[in-house]
Amino acid sequence: MAKVQPRTLSGFMELLPARQAQFDRMADTLKKTYALYGFTALDTPLIEASEVLLAKGGGETEKQIYRFMKGDPDLSLRFDLTVPLAKYVAQNYANLTFPFRRFQIGKVYRGERAQRGRFREFYQADIDIIGDGKLDISNEAEIPSIIYKAFTAMGLKRFQIRVNNRKILNGFYAMLGLTEKSGDIMRTVDKLDKIGAEKVAALLVSEEIGLSQDQADEILKFIAIKGSNAEVLSALEGYRGRHELFDLGLDELNTVTKYLSAFGVPESHFAVDLTIARGLDYYTGTVYETTMLDHPEIGSICSGGRYDNLAEYYTDKQLPGVGISIGLTRLFFVLEDQGYLNDALNTAPADVLILPMTEDLAPAIALATQLRSAGIRTQIHAEQKKFKQKIGYADKLAIPYAVFLGEDEINAGVAAVKDMKTGDQVKLSADEAIAHIKAGLAKLNEGLPILDKGE
Amino acid sequence: MAKVQPRTLSGFMELLPARQAQFDRMADTLKKTYALYGFTALDTPLIEASEVLLAKGGGETEKQIYRFMKGDPDLSLRFDLTVPLAKYVAQNYANLTFPFRRFQIGKVYRGERAQRGRFREFYQADIDIIGDGKLDISNEAEIPSIIYKAFTAMGLKRFQIRVNNRKILNGFYAMLGLTEKSGDIMRTVDKLDKIGAEKVAALLVSEEIGLSQDQADEILKFIAIKGSNAEVLSALEGYRGRHELFDLGLDELNTVTKYLSAFGVPESHFAVDLTIARGLDYYTGTVYETTMLDHPEIGSICSGGRYDNLAEYYTDKQLPGVGISIGLTRLFFVLEDQGYLNDALNTAPADVLILPMTEDLAPAIALATQLRSAGIRTQIHAEQKKFKQKIGYADKLAIPYAVFLGEDEINAGVAAVKDMKTGDQVKLSADEAIAHIKAGLAKLNEGLPILDKGE
Repeated sequence: MAKVQPRTLSGFMELLPARQAQFDRMADTLKKTYALYGFTALDTPLIEASEVLLAKGGGETEKQIYRFMKGDPDLSLRFDLTVPLAKYVAQNYANLTFPFRRFQIGKVYRGERAQRGRFREFYQADIDIIGDGKLDISNEAEIPSIIYKAFTAMGLKRFQIRVNNRKILNGFYAMLGLTEKSGDIMRTVDKLDKIGAEKVAALLVSEEIGLSQDQADEILKFIAIKGSNAEVLSALEGYRGRHELFDLGLDELNTVTKYLSAFGVPESHFAVDLTIARGLDYYTGTVYETTMLDHPEIGSICSGGRYDNLAEYYTDKQLPGVGISIGLTRLFFVLEDQGYLNDALNTAPADVLILPMTEDLAPAIALATQLRSAGIRTQIHAEQKKFKQKIGYADKLAIPYAVFLGEDEINAGVAAVKDMKTGDQVKLSADEAIAHIKAGLAKLNEGLPILDKGE
Repeated sequence: MAKVQPRTLSGFMELLPARQAQFDRMADTLKKTYALYGFTALDTPLIEASEVLLAKGGGETEKQIYRFMKGDPDLSLRFDLTVPLAKYVAQNYANLTFPFRRFQIGKVYRGERAQRGRFREFYQADIDIIGDGKLDISNEAEIPSIIYKAFTAMGLKRFQIRVNNRKILNGFYAMLGLTEKSGDIMRTVDKLDKIGAEKVAALLVSEEIGLSQDQADEILKFIAIKGSNAEVLSALEGYRGRHELFDLGLDELNTVTKYLSAFGVPESHFAVDLTIARGLDYYTGTVYETTMLDHPEIGSICSGGRYDNLAEYYTDKQLPGVGISIGLTRLFFVLEDQGYLNDALNTAPADVLILPMTEDLAPAIALATQLRSAGIRTQIHAEQKKFKQKIGYADKLAIPYAVFLGEDEINAGVAAVKDMKTGDQVKLSADEAIAHIKAGLAKLNEGLPILDKGE
């Protein structure tokens, strides 16, 4: 028969089993952390009516959409989890209770040009808190504190959540009479890390944007404000009283900073950073980006912010909210690429491989049943293979324990339990074996998914 | 602004939060059970090259595929998890260890006509064991025993796994000299439940199939063999010695039946059933279907079987296997529809709602941090709302505990913990509160996801 070459599309991540186990462990850490903060899990369709998904329309994203016709007139694959959330909340408004806290970890699709480390199918892991009409400022501190806990629970250490407030930026530009140009200015300032202050200044006074040299200087002076959070906040106080929106933003930033500390985020892990703007007009208050301190070249691994109108394309209800999103597939790719994955953790499909040494499998099955009841992941190797091959199987898969069950053991009511790493072998009753194996597994699973050598 | 009507496509399941929690609990039970048997989790792309996905080609399924062009020439959404598994195993053959045991719970897509209880996007929950060249018969008993454990762990009671062997059927038709017609015959016999024996007989002797009356009688007599498993197996012994393939199939069925019992499946939950054939030519040995005894009209909720060539379209390697698949979305739909879901279980997004009664949130945040560290899902209600509205929030979401933290409590180092169901309120230290709440939650989470009143 003619064969078709089996292949996976470029830009689609498909992992070997041990890597998949590592990915899943990271995703599970996120799920657990999100759940601990009272977020409910949502699972929305991957396909939506194009009219619904693209209600906002325009932009770069639309060009990347996987869009097609079938039965229903016009369908699209979701490109993020925010638009489906907006649809969901507008559609189910009467059946939801606000503030509505949801998390979703799901695949999204963007038909980008294939490129190393860029994915066309990738997981986003989002949390959002949606208010009905109003939403308290404390949520804007809680959201990044959850990310801090989640990353820390994964084992990531050298990261920093950078916080700013759009009202401060918009208020500042209003002070300079540059409100109408603020979009252009923010997009330019956003390039600071990449092209440097001098080139940013040149762009600001260029014909295209058209600022005066004084205005450009003021802006560069403003975004050059650096230091500890207290220092930055104190420098910002120098601008107070010149514009209402600025003052409001500064109050918010003070409050968020205070609460971030109360929520247990150490100062080492968050920084007030006036260069953070987030491209989207959508954000109206606090904004976040998160960088890996040792890999700034990767850009933000987790971003979000406060918005005033989640679902304005679907409903007249005002639904303010705050949310943040981790690009999980890309983060995993980077962590693997940079050697951050903790390969010492158990990634075997089973904790125990039972090798029956008798023709009758019944004793092996009985033992497997006992181990499984105790929560031990157990496989029986029942294939007609040589002993050496069976042990090789446990070896290759890094299964931590092999259990031999021959006639002698069966008659004596014991099993021979072999620690595959140390080679130690002991004869134990089923109950003893369970205790022995569980203690060993606990040690083996002690580490965190990410091994961050920093700090 | 003109609004777009927010809507979800028909044939796509999108659940409200409490229902989603029930769905997730079922899926988690499956994941845990599958993992206990040493299956590794896979996650393959939802989009594949059409050439790869449709390598087998033809058939009803192809018409239902979501297929489109974008960047890459020709793409399709996966319509099951078996074809992607075949691709994966063929592609990664050198990096996998056999027998390769994988589970996958993922969404698949079929553009079927919209119909109540039929889904275009639905979860399949699959397990497969793939051998390299050979695979022991005991796997054919282990697979349905895992399904038995999984359904039982969910709370389902009144179900039966029906088992047959294609070699018995093929051997039997060979005895009658009807090998070439066996496909037509099996498809006709498959209608037995729906149209009855008389109409099946009429179809068999019709011009289209063209059996003699004797042959049709023999077939009907054969498939009429009923009774306990021992009785059916004993009746089958009467045919032994007439055809090699039949004898082999009967040996296999005897072995599978013996092991099913050893694997802990009670006779009430599996039946040797000679009418089970599974439409697909793909199956070559043991085949399974699973019915809900009180809802036979639903058809099989979990089906599969033994196959000899998983990946023949992609590789020359012979990869025999055995697998089974649960149509999870449809099963959930049926369980909800028929009132099987256990609504007494905790489906709230949080276990505890903390109501801070002071302006400073720091004490509430500190308490929340302690509760979360103890694994208690905790939300702080920090909105500027009246007390009654905040309590109403806990009530609406069925959050089991509300915790009040006013100045008196803070000064006394306690919190007022209210059981929202009984209304009982006690003042407790943080440690006492954790113990109190954990004990209550344990009771609340005692039940199983499905409440099967049968038996």
